[in-house]
Amino acid sequence: MKNLRLAVRESRPRTVIDVCGVAVGRDFVVIAGPCSVESEEQMMASARAVKAAGADMLRGGAFKPRTSPYAFQGLGLRGLKLLARAGRETGLPIVTEVIDPRDVSWVAEFADVLQIGTRNMQNFSLLKEVGRTGRPVLLKRGMYSTLEEWLNCAEYILSEGNPNVILCERGIRTFERYTRNTLDLSAVPAIKELTHLPIIIDPTHSTGRLSLIPPMSVAAVAAGADGLIIEVHHRPEEALCDAAQALTPAMFTDLMGRLRPLCNFMDGLPE
Amino acid sequence: MKNLRLAVRESRPRTVIDVCGVAVGRDFVVIAGPCSVESEEQMMASARAVKAAGADMLRGGAFKPRTSPYAFQGLGLRGLKLLARAGRETGLPIVTEVIDPRDVSWVAEFADVLQIGTRNMQNFSLLKEVGRTGRPVLLKRGMYSTLEEWLNCAEYILSEGNPNVILCERGIRTFERYTRNTLDLSAVPAIKELTHLPIIIDPTHSTGRLSLIPPMSVAAVAAGADGLIIEVHHRPEEALCDAAQALTPAMFTDLMGRLRPLCNFMDGLPE
Amino acid sequence: MKNLRLAVRESRPRTVIDVCGVAVGRDFVVIAGPCSVESEEQMMASARAVKAAGADMLRGGAFKPRTSPYAFQGLGLRGLKLLARAGRETGLPIVTEVIDPRDVSWVAEFADVLQIGTRNMQNFSLLKEVGRTGRPVLLKRGMYSTLEEWLNCAEYILSEGNPNVILCERGIRTFERYTRNTLDLSAVPAIKELTHLPIIIDPTHSTGRLSLIPPMSVAAVAAGADGLIIEVHHRPEEALCDAAQALTPAMFTDLMGRLRPLCNFMDGLPE
Amino acid sequence: MKNLRLAVRESRPRTVIDVCGVAVGRDFVVIAGPCSVESEEQMMASARAVKAAGADMLRGGAFKPRTSPYAFQGLGLRGLKLLARAGRETGLPIVTEVIDPRDVSWVAEFADVLQIGTRNMQNFSLLKEVGRTGRPVLLKRGMYSTLEEWLNCAEYILSEGNPNVILCERGIRTFERYTRNTLDLSAVPAIKELTHLPIIIDPTHSTGRLSLIPPMSVAAVAAGADGLIIEVHHRPEEALCDAAQALTPAMFTDLMGRLRPLCNFMDGLPE
Repeated sequence: MKNLRLAVRESRPRTVIDVCGVAVGRDFVVIAGPCSVESEEQMMASARAVKAAGADMLRGGAFKPRTSPYAFQGLGLRGLKLLARAGRETGLPIVTEVIDPRDVSWVAEFADVLQIGTRNMQNFSLLKEVGRTGRPVLLKRGMYSTLEEWLNCAEYILSEGNPNVILCERGIRTFERYTRNTLDLSAVPAIKELTHLPIIIDPTHSTGRLSLIPPMSVAAVAAGADGLIIEVHHRPEEALCDAAQALTPAMFTDLMGRLRPLCNFMDGLPE
Repeated sequence: MKNLRLAVRESRPRTVIDVCGVAVGRDFVVIAGPCSVESEEQMMASARAVKAAGADMLRGGAFKPRTSPYAFQGLGLRGLKLLARAGRETGLPIVTEVIDPRDVSWVAEFADVLQIGTRNMQNFSLLKEVGRTGRPVLLKRGMYSTLEEWLNCAEYILSEGNPNVILCERGIRTFERYTRNTLDLSAVPAIKELTHLPIIIDPTHSTGRLSLIPPMSVAAVAAGADGLIIEVHHRPEEALCDAAQALTPAMFTDLMGRLRPLCNFMDGLPE
Repeated sequence: MKNLRLAVRESRPRTVIDVCGVAVGRDFVVIAGPCSVESEEQMMASARAVKAAGADMLRGGAFKPRTSPYAFQGLGLRGLKLLARAGRETGLPIVTEVIDPRDVSWVAEFADVLQIGTRNMQNFSLLKEVGRTGRPVLLKRGMYSTLEEWLNCAEYILSEGNPNVILCERGIRTFERYTRNTLDLSAVPAIKELTHLPIIIDPTHSTGRLSLIPPMSVAAVAAGADGLIIEVHHRPEEALCDAAQALTPAMFTDLMGRLRPLCNFMDGLPE
Repeated sequence: MKNLRLAVRESRPRTVIDVCGVAVGRDFVVIAGPCSVESEEQMMASARAVKAAGADMLRGGAFKPRTSPYAFQGLGLRGLKLLARAGRETGLPIVTEVIDPRDVSWVAEFADVLQIGTRNMQNFSLLKEVGRTGRPVLLKRGMYSTLEEWLNCAEYILSEGNPNVILCERGIRTFERYTRNTLDLSAVPAIKELTHLPIIIDPTHSTGRLSLIPPMSVAAVAAGADGLIIEVHHRPEEALCDAAQALTPAMFTDLMGRLRPLCNFMDGLPE
């Protein structure tokens, strides 16, 4: 991993990022919520549901990078405000994607964590801009990118003076068609030996199948991941994007009931 | 998964395969041993080590499909005899690869499980031949193959009258270069919903890195795999193939000490 | 390309293989015919059509490696005899696939060129067996294989004493779904700098789309390929396999009318 | 290709884009020049060389999206001015990459064609911005993207009112390691049947090997491409990026000597 300076494992102790009291990199963290912010009712209902199930942070997209220009592109500022309100009312820190360097500074006023999506992993202007804010950044792996390229993107953020980078494996593009992408869970121990930064797993976009989300979430805990980011919608069948892969509140609650005991058990296992 | 008849989930209850008293598909099964049979001393030492650590079966290759014709191709019959003796002395059933349809019937006299390697997954003549023996077959996924193609290969074996097929995910070929292949752990729950056949994980060939084998073995348990096949060599630095990725007996013993409690814990978790 | 001895470029002058008077590696060679031998009428009609259009050799499969065990597996010996008769009557040398090492010696009595399919590229027992016959071998690239692995498979054949290996690029497996596979045409100049063996292109299986076969055939000539292998069926809509991608005799005739002048033109271009 | 409206083949006649008198989509167009603008001397010498060899446009990067934040990032405005001067003095229209939506309007004052690089193909903010300028846009295919996703990115630009989109295939990421990426030349006829937009080929970044650039350029002509974009540096060994893959002026001149006659020949071939 030539060229890495600040991201490289040996350069410092494991990074722990404080997000409004949630210690990413120390505690196992679950981020949950809908793909996109759609309405006040949807956002509030989803937020309350994930809070009740024990989520640590709330996600929701106000700017959606969509394959087609004619697809729903998100509610923008209005969406951000709804998300922020849902975060305040439930006491959950909020995570939201930013896709344009011109939006970074004002989105950072609302967001507790700025998300960089898989299509923008190598949008270097955007990386530098979020690097300048100091806000924690959730950096998704490009669906086409090697671990080395990914860590270099983290380095772009770190080198602007922002040490708060959370990596997120979300599946890579392969020939397999049963799953939407192929979740590269071996990235977890690989990243742990290459860098001091925390890494979480996105079981939703990687598998793209409801039935595979719970087992891969459980496997992520066992592989040593620092957390999960999961799509949960209070009424998935009405979702404006990714409807087929959002967990219902009941499914999410069941999953959390399995994750927490496993986290405790794993903490007690010998290294 | 059109075309599947016998392998399809709905066609029968979960398959449990009795290999000399080991119930594959019911109990979590660990198969361990060296990549290739090299000598009596190596085979006996490795067999005793994996037995002592709690392995359920012994692996070892007598016929090695190697990229180059000038690489060590295995000891053949002599290797099989050494493997069989090591199995007898330790009481472990033996698993060995067969690569030529002409060898199947006599190799089946030695082997408790016949392994089909990743390069031969679609060697249909070989599949039909092992299908005719009735011996349990460990069918590795082609490094280039979809789940659908893989299950059709199982169907080739089943349709010859042999119901004893164990699937083995061993990594698929992607662009990532840090790992040898990309372990597709989501294949475990995917296969569980598509077929009644058991599935085990090969963390050695998929990751190709010693340090990633333990965490991915642990993750495989959590994902619901039915077992593992792991390379263990009593002196890895002297191995004639794959030297860099065989666990030492001490590393394997440590790993087993983590796997067994986790298996028990997972059994107690709600579905 | 470590390990290569006989296949490596520097080891000898460019290989020219004489197949019943057709000089593969010197003249541009077009092999055409149906995917599988289906009946006497089909085989004779297709053979006459490709002969009339100017093909140099006739292809046809008697043993078909099919994804599903329930798909048409070929006519076997009967198919071979029909193919041989069609070859005799048209004066075209015949190319046919062999998939089982036990069949090699008797299939070699019928075939002028033995084809190794993409799924069997690393079927080393089969490679050794065709290596022992001395018959020209058409070695297709594994859809998952690197150039280095492919050349090592050629080396398996060469090292058994058979110098008559024709390489065939037939597309590699990628994430793109518009085409069946991705034709790696850069393999042509790459192979030319790595080995002295001739290389031909299969535009049918690589693209899997009728409309792309003519332009990619033309491009193959320009890239410096030594020939083409193309599926032609006298009535594609009735074909038992790959019906959607076989050229009609009229389409093939049109294509030949473009290929031959281009070959002549390319010969006259400065290096 | 659902969702496409303006890019779809049937929606209008083939697009021809006038770039200062060069008719992209009608004439075969060669764009050449160094990877990045490095100095006045380098830019002028390279520009004169490609002009003398018959290039139609001049390329040069002032903003370089580099894997590492510590690699040379381009000369920015100063580079643009040097490029513009070289264009003026040679009479060649200039093509340059833009990577930040905030830069689009002022870069468009210098550039005759705005290039969107492979890492920014799905940088939708950037696409919308170049869509608003009306300037011709060279849209490179994402190294991980399907034809459908690529055309949707063209649709982003078209739907902002800019009809002047030139597509550029520059290789996709696969498992093959001999070449830097895998040039998907079948994209040429595929794109021709899917859209009315012109498509050119980048043989430099796709193959990443000097020796493969000439044969793949020739093959691109035969496949029906509308042009090429090739790296040429007056002293490649001194280049600040991609040194190993830039053609010398002499090599480029030789190549042009083969391309032009082939273009003429292809025009005369029956469809």
